[in-house]
Formats: sequence, C-alpha cells, structure tokens
Amino acid sequence: KTSVITGKNLSLKKRLTCTFLSFHRPILVHNPHLDGLKDDVLYHFSLGTETHDLPAMFGDVKFVCVGGSPWRMKSFIEYIASVLGMEDPKAEYPNICAGTDRYAMYKIGPVLSVSHGMGIPSISIMLHELIKLLHHARCTDVTIFRIGTSGGIGLEPGTVVVTKQSVDANFLPKFEQVILGKTVMRNTDLDPGLAQELLECSKELNQFDTQLGNTMCTMDFYEGQARLDGAFCSYTEEDKQEYLHNAQKAGVCNIEMESSVFAAMCKMSGLRGKKSSPPFIPT
Amino acid sequence: KTSVITGKNLSLKKRLTCTFLSFHRPILVHNPHLDGLKDDVLYHFSLGTETHDLPAMFGDVKFVCVGGSPWRMKSFIEYIASVLGMEDPKAEYPNICAGTDRYAMYKIGPVLSVSHGMGIPSISIMLHELIKLLHHARCTDVTIFRIGTSGGIGLEPGTVVVTKQSVDANFLPKFEQVILGKTVMRNTDLDPGLAQELLECSKELNQFDTQLGNTMCTMDFYEGQARLDGAFCSYTEEDKQEYLHNAQKAGVCNIEMESSVFAAMCKMSGLRGKKSSPPFIPT
Repeated sequence: KTSVITGKNLSLKKRLTCTFLSFHRPILVHNPHLDGLKDDVLYHFSLGTETHDLPAMFGDVKFVCVGGSPWRMKSFIEYIASVLGMEDPKAEYPNICAGTDRYAMYKIGPVLSVSHGMGIPSISIMLHELIKLLHHARCTDVTIFRIGTSGGIGLEPGTVVVTKQSVDANFLPKFEQVILGKTVMRNTDLDPGLAQELLECSKELNQFDTQLGNTMCTMDFYEGQARLDGAFCSYTEEDKQEYLHNAQKAGVCNIEMESSVFAAMCKMSGLRGKKSSPPFIPT
Repeated sequence: KTSVITGKNLSLKKRLTCTFLSFHRPILVHNPHLDGLKDDVLYHFSLGTETHDLPAMFGDVKFVCVGGSPWRMKSFIEYIASVLGMEDPKAEYPNICAGTDRYAMYKIGPVLSVSHGMGIPSISIMLHELIKLLHHARCTDVTIFRIGTSGGIGLEPGTVVVTKQSVDANFLPKFEQVILGKTVMRNTDLDPGLAQELLECSKELNQFDTQLGNTMCTMDFYEGQARLDGAFCSYTEEDKQEYLHNAQKAGVCNIEMESSVFAAMCKMSGLRGKKSSPPFIPT
C-alpha cells in the first residue's frame, strides 16, 4: 500500500531515497543566448538577475539538496542547521522563493534545500532555473543531492538505494527529451566513485541498510509502476509480478519519477554523479 | 519573457487558460482490483475510504476546477464563493488536503477546486485519485475544468483559448502512456459541442477575447517549448521561429504541459469534453 511505499512509519532518515550527483567544475550552462539577456528571470523561483544580487545570496553554496515535498525540504534544512551547529531556536528559516508557490527554497550556511514537485517535467523546470542560478551566482565545486521516497523491488522497506544508473520503463539507461519535435537521447550514467563514497558513509553511520542498484524512472505513478490501485488498471496481479520480476532481473532495485532527467541535466552541467533510492514494495 | 507568458500584468480572468471537460455519467473507474480493497487510500490527497466519509464530504460535487498552483486554486474558490453568494467574510476556506503538501483542495457548495502541480506526471497522479474520490463519493453529472496559463502562438496576450484538441510536440492528437513497459496510445479528442458552449459563454460575458484552437502539450518548459532562455539551448532563434510557425500551421494556438493526459484520463472516465488555453508568445 502507498503508506508502506512512502514509509510513513519509518524515521525521516530511513524513509528517504537519496540521489547524489556532484559538480566539480564551475556550473556550465550550454546556452549562448543567455549572454544577450539583460535580465534573466528565474520565473518559477520568483528570482532574477536584475531584481536580486544572486552572487551575494548564493555565491557560498557548496551543497544543494533537492526533493519533491516543500515541507520535507524545510525539515531537511532544520536538520542540517542542527548538524552544522548553526541552528537558532528562535529563527524561522525563511522560504527564499516566498513570491511563488511553484517551489520552496531554504538556505543555511553553504547548504541550499529546494523542492521540485512530482515527475520529470516539474523537476526539469526547477533544474533549468537552479543551474542558471548557480551559474549567475558564480558558484564552484557544488555537490547536488536528490533525496526522495521510492517503491522498492525485493528489498526491505527503509533500505536506502544508492543509484548506480537510472533506467527507463524498459530498463534502458537513457532519457528521451523532445526538442523542436525531435527526440534526443540523453545519457543517465552516474559516477561509480561517488556511489562508493556514499556506501562508505552509510557503513560508518551504521543506521540503515544501504544498497547499490539501478533505479527505474517512470512517467506515471499508477499504471506506469504496475500498481493495481489506480483509477484504471487493465492488467492482472500476475502481469504486474512478471514485469517487476523482469525489472529485478535487469538490476532495478526501486522505482521513482525524477531520476533520469536529474542524472541527464546534472551530467550536462559538467558533473560526475550517482543516484540512490530506497526499496519499498509497490502495491 | 516568462512574465509576459504568465500574464502577470493581466487580470485574473484574462491570464487564465481554461480546459473544460464534462462527465455526464456516474464516474467510471476501470479497475476490477478496486472492489477487493478494504481501504482505498488516496495517498497524495491524505484521504481514504476508511478514514473519511467520502460520500458525505463530496457527494454533492457537481463542478471540479483544477489548475497548477495551490494559491490560485484557493483564489478561485474565494471567487466562486462570491459569485454564488456563499462567501462568509469571517471564514477561511480550509484546505481539505491539509495533511499533505502534494496537492491543495478547497470546496464551496457544489464546487471543488484542486491544484495539480506542473507537468503530465503530476496531474496524472492527482487525476487518478480525483476520479477514485468522485467514484467513492458516488458523484453524478460532474463537470470538470482545467484552468491554467500557457504560451500563445500568434495571439494577443490575455486571449483565452478553448481547446479543440490537445496535440503532442509533433502536433499529433495523441497521448502515449507506458504500461508494463509497453507504449499505449490514448485519444485526446474533446467534445465540439461543449467547446461551442464555452465560446458562447465568453461572448455573453464579453470581457476577454476567446478563440477555439489546438493546444500543444509538452514534457519540458524550456527546450520542449523552443524557449531560448533555459540552462541548455542547442538551437537558434530561426529554428525556434520555424518550429512555432509549423505548429501554427498545424492549428496550434498555445502550449502548456498537462492537457493531453487531462483529456485522455477524463475521456476514459466516461466524459465528453473540450479544452481551452490562452495565447501568449513564448520567448
């Protein structure tokens, strides 16, 4: 059931799925048109180069953590503040994107926490504007993480999956982007060295099971993830089990809805990276 | 620029894109597995058949209006309350989905207003759970609307487009849904009679220009809509103009990111319908 998938009964740490990608060069935008813009409006953040001093606001950012839910990204910044010893019991962490309800953004010291909503199109709008924000702010050596829940295949609920590769609904490591009506294939490879580092961090912490595996990224939560409880379902329990079994044979540990475009866009910005997600059994 | 596209300077009514579809039969779910569920959890609404009396809460719903932004859907219910003479100056309209931050939902009399976030995957999760909600609540004769902003092609900003047909990035009237790894084509036709009714309503109101046309639904806001101001752009201003010109020749009046799956899922629930969207020139 969905409540199991999202791990409602698990601790915050245990129910999270993490996706880690790291920028080791200045942020690369690949758009010659941006130089000619007098004012670059990051519309869905309610920020812009003319209205905000982006280098002053964000120039010290070294870590970005993104996840679907605005509430969770606020909890995350509170948690980070306490870990870094930077919490102020009287302070409310203000939402930097308070001028819009599309995304929420919080910052403490060098850490930025941003929500991205659900699904590839929603995270892709956010990543376009985030990459431009980091570029305009002249950030360097930024590491970016995605933390999210996912549906696991053959794993104990609460396990964290560090994603080796993001694959599509046919278990292939690619992301299809339509540009001017033509389909362009983008690579979803992640960095094996970083994945190893994450697994070692988890071993040191010794607080939850962590596993390296492939993560399947789908366009739909119900029919797209072989669930039986959507408004429409044209397949049987046996069809579902066969599909998930084939996914497992192809190395898929879990299913979510944002990893492929996250991997593709972060890679295009000049990163090496990796992904992880937790295993909960989808209904 | 994006601020033009979203019509920041326009009145609420003028900047809205409307999508109209109508249920004229009891809500149809096509899922034999639902009957066997003891508790159907509408997880992303934080509602369920065991925890909530859905017929008591929603049985009188006759109109559903959906749109991307939670703030806008709250404004909409306040507007509807005043139009229906049902407003209470002292009342806050409570968010029925207050237990989650995935979607927001408001109700006044027979009107339900629900946010759906951005993009096909996000609205599709909401529609699965909305269709099940209306089914469990035993609603009949429900009319559903989508109201949203869009990027117009060759039309004055502020115009409202009533959508004749939702088309994909190659201007074809279809929605591709991947189920168990196989691509299924779904129809995005809308009802011509209802579109006519909407045009007539607009004529009576005489407050804004309204036009019948096709709406293109894309998976991406920047590269997918030929914008020049994303983090990545591999094409020229001329390529962009050629693509938009071809779209216009194919009858496309505007571009947004949810219409195709909205049309497909509403149609599958047993509706006849139609869509509309407003014309703003994308950058």
